[in-house]
Amino acid sequence: MNFCSACGEKVSLQIPQGDNRHRYVCDACETIHYENPKIVTGCIPEWDGKILRRKRAIEPRYGLWTLPAGFMENSETNMQGAARETAEEANASIDNMTLFCVFSIAHINQVYTMYRGELVGGEASPGEESLETALMNEAQIPWQEIAFPVISETLKLYYTDVAEGRFNTHYGDIVKQPDGSFIVNYY
Amino acid sequence: MNFCSACGEKVSLQIPQGDNRHRYVCDACETIHYENPKIVTGCIPEWDGKILRRKRAIEPRYGLWTLPAGFMENSETNMQGAARETAEEANASIDNMTLFCVFSIAHINQVYTMYRGELVGGEASPGEESLETALMNEAQIPWQEIAFPVISETLKLYYTDVAEGRFNTHYGDIVKQPDGSFIVNYY
Repeated sequence: MNFCSACGEKVSLQIPQGDNRHRYVCDACETIHYENPKIVTGCIPEWDGKILRRKRAIEPRYGLWTLPAGFMENSETNMQGAARETAEEANASIDNMTLFCVFSIAHINQVYTMYRGELVGGEASPGEESLETALMNEAQIPWQEIAFPVISETLKLYYTDVAEGRFNTHYGDIVKQPDGSFIVNYY
Repeated sequence: MNFCSACGEKVSLQIPQGDNRHRYVCDACETIHYENPKIVTGCIPEWDGKILRRKRAIEPRYGLWTLPAGFMENSETNMQGAARETAEEANASIDNMTLFCVFSIAHINQVYTMYRGELVGGEASPGEESLETALMNEAQIPWQEIAFPVISETLKLYYTDVAEGRFNTHYGDIVKQPDGSFIVNYY
């Protein structure tokens, strides 16, 4: 951030009065520009013992498998955002949604929220950002070709709950280690 | 938003290629400025059958009762943010935190996440943004003097779970009606 979005003058990093963090503050109009984490919201669409996966048609991680998910938009609920992403990326509707997991990923300033729900009619097809969609059972999941650690963790949790015959709402943190690997803390 | 924070030139509302929503786009450098919901994260600190409340020392809702909560910051987890707000607003530490509820409030572009946890040592005192802190049992909650609908709903859920002798993780939407009242949808 170099310039004030309100007046167009230069901003500088300062700790505003009464605050304890550096913020971009306009040198002219003194507007404080806060930067906060973003929410990514998505779905595990279920049908006939399988779940809907999609292969990414965009960078990053072009050609790898993921779930329908994307940045939550203003003026929608978290759940509406998850359903919208499922419609946009997989031309699919999802019903009877329940919150399945919440992951914080502090090093990229994101919080992921993932819902389970019924894939209406079992029907899906690739949206603009997908190369392919597929209904997969656990044995069919390509564990070595998953786009993001948070998606691998969501799927591991999911199949653990399936094996235990009940679903909980889970909360965890995904923490990047100095060597580039990830650890996951559950609470 | 009037000016580009990257280059300082004017922005205009446009639907970028491949998008379906209006965004502020820089007329000069073409940077797209996305605006997304913010997360408010907070706590229900528990001690000896009571919970910690705080009275707001800032606007909006100066002098009304709330829980420790505030905007999640970059580089922290959702749970760390809740604990940080509890420290800043009530000089209190919280332990053994579990996710209690997630509320979407689409008309103000916010998602609230609230955790339950143990108020360490039962100790608290007002931080800069608080006039007063108090440990209250259910009968002591000043239901007519609560700062925000989301806090009232969180407390109602909490005491419902207390009465039922178990705690779940809840998800709901708080929806503002045309007459200014609020309805809450649970899923």
